[in-house]
Amino acid sequence: MTTSIYAREQTALLIVDPYNDFMSEGGKLYAAIKPTADASGLFDNLRKIVPKIRSLGIQVFIVPHHRSCEGDFDGWQHINQFQKAGLPTKAFEVGTWGGEFNPEFGPQKGDVIIKEHWAQSGFANTDLDAQLKQHGIRKIILVGLIANSCIESTARFGMELGYHVTLVPDATAAFSPEGMTAAATNAPMFAHAILKTDELIKALGASAT
Amino acid sequence: MTTSIYAREQTALLIVDPYNDFMSEGGKLYAAIKPTADASGLFDNLRKIVPKIRSLGIQVFIVPHHRSCEGDFDGWQHINQFQKAGLPTKAFEVGTWGGEFNPEFGPQKGDVIIKEHWAQSGFANTDLDAQLKQHGIRKIILVGLIANSCIESTARFGMELGYHVTLVPDATAAFSPEGMTAAATNAPMFAHAILKTDELIKALGASAT
Amino acid sequence: MTTSIYAREQTALLIVDPYNDFMSEGGKLYAAIKPTADASGLFDNLRKIVPKIRSLGIQVFIVPHHRSCEGDFDGWQHINQFQKAGLPTKAFEVGTWGGEFNPEFGPQKGDVIIKEHWAQSGFANTDLDAQLKQHGIRKIILVGLIANSCIESTARFGMELGYHVTLVPDATAAFSPEGMTAAATNAPMFAHAILKTDELIKALGASAT
Amino acid sequence: MTTSIYAREQTALLIVDPYNDFMSEGGKLYAAIKPTADASGLFDNLRKIVPKIRSLGIQVFIVPHHRSCEGDFDGWQHINQFQKAGLPTKAFEVGTWGGEFNPEFGPQKGDVIIKEHWAQSGFANTDLDAQLKQHGIRKIILVGLIANSCIESTARFGMELGYHVTLVPDATAAFSPEGMTAAATNAPMFAHAILKTDELIKALGASAT
Repeated sequence: MTTSIYAREQTALLIVDPYNDFMSEGGKLYAAIKPTADASGLFDNLRKIVPKIRSLGIQVFIVPHHRSCEGDFDGWQHINQFQKAGLPTKAFEVGTWGGEFNPEFGPQKGDVIIKEHWAQSGFANTDLDAQLKQHGIRKIILVGLIANSCIESTARFGMELGYHVTLVPDATAAFSPEGMTAAATNAPMFAHAILKTDELIKALGASAT
Repeated sequence: MTTSIYAREQTALLIVDPYNDFMSEGGKLYAAIKPTADASGLFDNLRKIVPKIRSLGIQVFIVPHHRSCEGDFDGWQHINQFQKAGLPTKAFEVGTWGGEFNPEFGPQKGDVIIKEHWAQSGFANTDLDAQLKQHGIRKIILVGLIANSCIESTARFGMELGYHVTLVPDATAAFSPEGMTAAATNAPMFAHAILKTDELIKALGASAT
Repeated sequence: MTTSIYAREQTALLIVDPYNDFMSEGGKLYAAIKPTADASGLFDNLRKIVPKIRSLGIQVFIVPHHRSCEGDFDGWQHINQFQKAGLPTKAFEVGTWGGEFNPEFGPQKGDVIIKEHWAQSGFANTDLDAQLKQHGIRKIILVGLIANSCIESTARFGMELGYHVTLVPDATAAFSPEGMTAAATNAPMFAHAILKTDELIKALGASAT
Repeated sequence: MTTSIYAREQTALLIVDPYNDFMSEGGKLYAAIKPTADASGLFDNLRKIVPKIRSLGIQVFIVPHHRSCEGDFDGWQHINQFQKAGLPTKAFEVGTWGGEFNPEFGPQKGDVIIKEHWAQSGFANTDLDAQLKQHGIRKIILVGLIANSCIESTARFGMELGYHVTLVPDATAAFSPEGMTAAATNAPMFAHAILKTDELIKALGASAT
């Protein structure tokens, strides 16, 4: 038996924002992330990680961004610049294909779907922390989008809350190479482990032995 | 009367981690931040901002990092890489000069001193949010250290909590130029205003008219 | 001009759990709350408070309980006694009349509908705190159900978060007279104001002058 | 081997507010809690529970109330009635005997001392949640004071956060018999287990087998 690093019943995979608008050709933001996704190998790597996780019986949590709808931010006095700039795009719009989950990386039966987050942290204003505790999770592995926005904020919050946080830089993407660089610069300040996809697969396998 | 942007009674200055170890010559981490502090003009700019804020009667909150002491992290199962690496340094150690507040930028009578934060966000595991609400604060201006660590995490948390967040990049510093660049890349994703010191001074003056 | 206690733009009415199952004849839990609702005058008092609030332009927040659905609590390791006992009832079931809002006390155009809370506090695991801040709210007035459960927990959390909390004991009800007594015993420990409906109406009027 | 209910490494005892002012003869609030403490058997029961917990190696967390000091609540706009009424008492005053921990029920070497809570919930504005996670704790057992104030609020918050919550009504007390009754009425709404001291001792023993 090897040293268990990712005990099955205490580990979760968090798939952040797996919407068609981000992850499917033709999605509103697909072109914006494609260059960094191609460079990191995002989709190929998700195709390695997600099935491996599911085959091991590790719990998957879907951590979805707020989906645009009529009346969004009505009466809000402190809309941030990013939210303001994104308004005309109507990303992940309710009732559109882009606001549906990508069939490959979205939820499957048995996954826990967390309440939508308004901004960047999957923990803020949602039930993510309580759901993780209810499932006995102590270590979270983050994949999906955006490296220096939702992934980074969810990781920063998770660390403060006491979770063990694993980042997988080649299973994420950003709106620019500079975004990827910023995420990489900051990650060692709050992550407990920063693994390449192959390293993660190996660690998961070893933990399961 | 000009348009009021920073209403005196709803605005706060958050001075993050104003310890001797960071801000005073001879401090354990002073040399580490000096290059970027010199480049940004951190100390000169704090000398403009802090007295201006005090003269306007805007409430100052001191947002202090955990101060090292015996037994730190005993029994913690998820110490992050940054905390681990920092252990031998014993930054801001209780009972030492480095763990005392810098006399120029630390608290003065009437300031609110928030509970120490364990990691990077001044909101996490402290009374910052409740204290801001008790004082009627809705807009926070962040200065101090470290740009891509405590400043960025406090800003990210503050935005999620519903505060209007102002960053002042030339009133902060980092452990490397790359840290400053990462902070600058990420800031537009969660900040409501990103101002140079001179722009902030002007906006504060206009608000007070 | 009288002393303003409930400034219009800083005050909110929180209507907690206004579902048909609670508030409409024939609802699954209507009979359970009817004795204490009749004794307190809940419905008559809501008919005074809600229109008054709306006529003054005070913002209404709907604070809804989790609505029962297939798979609820799957995989939860710490379901509490109350949740367990309630499972067969399927209160506020998605897709049923009982899980729809009561037409008289539920949301109207312009109200903010908060994310559903899993247990008792409208703040826990929801966006209530952030939404209140985004709307500039500093004082919350709580009406609806259940006095010693969701109303009390939301009040306790609101106070800790720094809000001014007003309870209106005759605009709530419980599952038993003992529940009403418990709520009344505890209220002075965390509430800032405890008003009868008529006192609230008077205070609102005076504030608006 | 019996079914393990309180696994040693996932269980914590939370001793709430074990100050001399509450727990030692001559303390400012000792007379106020004595009648209900005598009725419940608080001190005798703590003398059974605390040594048993320590002998089993279960982690103890001290959850202390804010200690009165000069300038308390300066500038606070929403002091609650209970805080206001308590101001002249200066309970748990810094620098006085009453603000020191009771030698029998206060911290011992190896205990985790949580940041002081301002009001009633030991989780609010403190590091209790993060510290529990860092120590791998999933079940919390609450003893100490006050039954319907700090104990109840800490229990309500703990449940919402996803912890398994055990109350021990005969190891607490209140300012009045009505306070004890209110706590007893409300407890089944959020607690996962409500045990007498003898039942707890037995369950702990069985878990350790």
